[in-house]
Amino acid sequence: MLLKELRAEVLEANLELVKRGLVLYTFGNASGVDRESGLLVIKPSGVDYDELRPEHMVVTDLNGKIVEGELRPSSDLDTHTLLYREFPEIGAVVHTHSEYATSFAQAGMEIPALGTTHADYFHGPVPVTAPLTDDAIGGRYVHETGLAIVKHFKEQGIDPLAVPAVLVAGHAPFCWGRTAHDAAHNAVVLEAVARMAYRTLTLQADCAGVSQGLLDRHYFRKHGAKATYGQKN
Amino acid sequence: MLLKELRAEVLEANLELVKRGLVLYTFGNASGVDRESGLLVIKPSGVDYDELRPEHMVVTDLNGKIVEGELRPSSDLDTHTLLYREFPEIGAVVHTHSEYATSFAQAGMEIPALGTTHADYFHGPVPVTAPLTDDAIGGRYVHETGLAIVKHFKEQGIDPLAVPAVLVAGHAPFCWGRTAHDAAHNAVVLEAVARMAYRTLTLQADCAGVSQGLLDRHYFRKHGAKATYGQKN
Amino acid sequence: MLLKELRAEVLEANLELVKRGLVLYTFGNASGVDRESGLLVIKPSGVDYDELRPEHMVVTDLNGKIVEGELRPSSDLDTHTLLYREFPEIGAVVHTHSEYATSFAQAGMEIPALGTTHADYFHGPVPVTAPLTDDAIGGRYVHETGLAIVKHFKEQGIDPLAVPAVLVAGHAPFCWGRTAHDAAHNAVVLEAVARMAYRTLTLQADCAGVSQGLLDRHYFRKHGAKATYGQKN
Amino acid sequence: MLLKELRAEVLEANLELVKRGLVLYTFGNASGVDRESGLLVIKPSGVDYDELRPEHMVVTDLNGKIVEGELRPSSDLDTHTLLYREFPEIGAVVHTHSEYATSFAQAGMEIPALGTTHADYFHGPVPVTAPLTDDAIGGRYVHETGLAIVKHFKEQGIDPLAVPAVLVAGHAPFCWGRTAHDAAHNAVVLEAVARMAYRTLTLQADCAGVSQGLLDRHYFRKHGAKATYGQKN
Repeated sequence: MLLKELRAEVLEANLELVKRGLVLYTFGNASGVDRESGLLVIKPSGVDYDELRPEHMVVTDLNGKIVEGELRPSSDLDTHTLLYREFPEIGAVVHTHSEYATSFAQAGMEIPALGTTHADYFHGPVPVTAPLTDDAIGGRYVHETGLAIVKHFKEQGIDPLAVPAVLVAGHAPFCWGRTAHDAAHNAVVLEAVARMAYRTLTLQADCAGVSQGLLDRHYFRKHGAKATYGQKN
Repeated sequence: MLLKELRAEVLEANLELVKRGLVLYTFGNASGVDRESGLLVIKPSGVDYDELRPEHMVVTDLNGKIVEGELRPSSDLDTHTLLYREFPEIGAVVHTHSEYATSFAQAGMEIPALGTTHADYFHGPVPVTAPLTDDAIGGRYVHETGLAIVKHFKEQGIDPLAVPAVLVAGHAPFCWGRTAHDAAHNAVVLEAVARMAYRTLTLQADCAGVSQGLLDRHYFRKHGAKATYGQKN
Repeated sequence: MLLKELRAEVLEANLELVKRGLVLYTFGNASGVDRESGLLVIKPSGVDYDELRPEHMVVTDLNGKIVEGELRPSSDLDTHTLLYREFPEIGAVVHTHSEYATSFAQAGMEIPALGTTHADYFHGPVPVTAPLTDDAIGGRYVHETGLAIVKHFKEQGIDPLAVPAVLVAGHAPFCWGRTAHDAAHNAVVLEAVARMAYRTLTLQADCAGVSQGLLDRHYFRKHGAKATYGQKN
Repeated sequence: MLLKELRAEVLEANLELVKRGLVLYTFGNASGVDRESGLLVIKPSGVDYDELRPEHMVVTDLNGKIVEGELRPSSDLDTHTLLYREFPEIGAVVHTHSEYATSFAQAGMEIPALGTTHADYFHGPVPVTAPLTDDAIGGRYVHETGLAIVKHFKEQGIDPLAVPAVLVAGHAPFCWGRTAHDAAHNAVVLEAVARMAYRTLTLQADCAGVSQGLLDRHYFRKHGAKATYGQKN
């Protein structure tokens, strides 16, 4: 069986989404990539989470060709592969319909950086893509979803590791990270941040959000060479 | 004991509503129909869910005449029977007062198709009926509730299997499906969709919702001959 | 030990409030009355719910004089006794700071009858009292709280058994019923009704609510001689 | 091992925050001070709560110098030490990103005293600090956070024991109390009060809140020499 360790990590990331209340039924999916072999491991489509085992994971190459696995991969596979091809720094992708982040996606609104919880994880607003055109929807839709994400990050000059999440307009969030654990963790924090942004904006619609200084301070407290949070490694 | 398997399925659907937090105390009810015999199985009225056993289910014909069972059937029986008579494709009906869907029903507002979660299950807005007239309320009220549902679907040309849920104005949702499992599943997803629609609309009251193309794309990804979601059967 | 059975019922009602998430820490209290002896049983003040035993309950007369019990009674005792003296049909009183009902009380807003869930339990809006005067607050405050409730029901001609709940302005709800079980049940349903009213009104501030006909229909389906809900007794 | 009992109390306070749903992952921290020795006990930074043991707690002096402990202390240590130096009556400090209180902090809004639940614990609005200047953020940020809190309480003449909580603008709440148990309890109640204030203000934005008389009445029912709530000690 290929990529035994990665399968376990990807499975655990999928189960973390369930444990944290981010997915309903079989919604949501997580994948991880092994950059050396150029292969990824992804959750199969529509299988109950409590039946998921490492051997159910599907292994594909970065073009989505199945290399190992009896089951159909997640129907969102083509978004995952595109993100891996275009964002070479990332090691894992998570997609959920977590409810508050999805509500922002449905409203077509980014999640502004309104506080330090946000700044600890996302070095700027969590952006929302442009709506897909009818042609994109009618064509290679799942691939086009990935294109819309990548296009937004490139045009806006956003570093995908500094802002490891996006809202696909009218759809839901995608998150990522260096590892499957990090990507799932980011998805969980994104939902918490979205819950607080929702309440903040319904209390005060014109809330200005944190200053650039506070955004930097908190982000770099947890990230980069000068991080001071947590224990020394 | 008649319809042993259907009794078990209907019981399980009732318990799924409890497990997912859709019902409080004895609120809510699920039924299933056996089209061959023309008999339906429905939850008894006002019995605690943790005492419910298959033998407590009540069997009636499609006019609500009790064929087997010691207990009174759900007080909403006449709505169920009418839906079975008028929507011949459906195999089960679920009624809850799930809180977000009910809030839309109380506001007299349909749930617009604001995102792909909605589109995965409901091929258009989840409609709200017209309020019942005083005569309808004072007459065969439970039957009239069913009439209001059917009238709305027929007048608007909505396929009940493509939009397997409705909000009864001032009251609460009814859902259905081909099987008791599906009807309960639809009720659970409806509540999730309602939660997200509530938050979307309180963030942005004039949210346009998904395009027809995106609605179609997601709906037909999970339904019909060309469905690609889940595992091959 | 006096009133052994009633102690058990009152304890169970208190614990039901915890189980349903209506109370935090030691907030909330339930009592029940034995009309024959003119004695009531009430939760002691500030004792952890998981330590509560029947023998901790305090027995007082209808003027609040302790007849049996080592512990101080709930600090809201004088509201309970007044309600028992003024509303002779009721057998139990429950007070919580359940969060949605309390939010309406804080806003000084009644909970209008917006749907059938409300109508199944409350035959009209759940009223809010007038704010207490400074004199009332500075005087026998807990007694005055009861007076404000009774005054409102008498002036408005509301039957306390038909509307078994009230919001004390700036404070929180009191509920009641024929038995401790019913009073706790009403408190739980009130909170569910308040949650739905909150969402309905934040979706549509000018929601008209149910018609008198629908209010009557649902209320009398569950109450009075012609009730059809539940099993025959 | 120094301060064995205080370590246990501080650990328990940290775990109470988890149990009550106030913290996600490793967010949040509690500390307690031993005034006699001038030492404090604080949670280490970024350690999973379910691995926390009394021996992991870090002991520092009131200037933050580590006296005992292998692990890095919470990254918010400098706020804790400043509060202990400036508020000599307090014995413990708790910091969380509890979601509703944090939403008010993000909105830059105080939590007004809207009801008796608030008044039972906080003798006035829970204030929000001024936003930190760029210089403060760029300098000794965590220390400056403490300064902003202390400055606000001193300028407004607020007694830190009468209002044992504050919202740091754009950030989150800090709470305190005489003991670690009390500080955690105050943090839990603050979040409940924030939930209710959120709902009250979204129902009625111009809600006036409780009168001074009602604020006093409830606050002094639970605090001070004439307190009547709970059992006699």
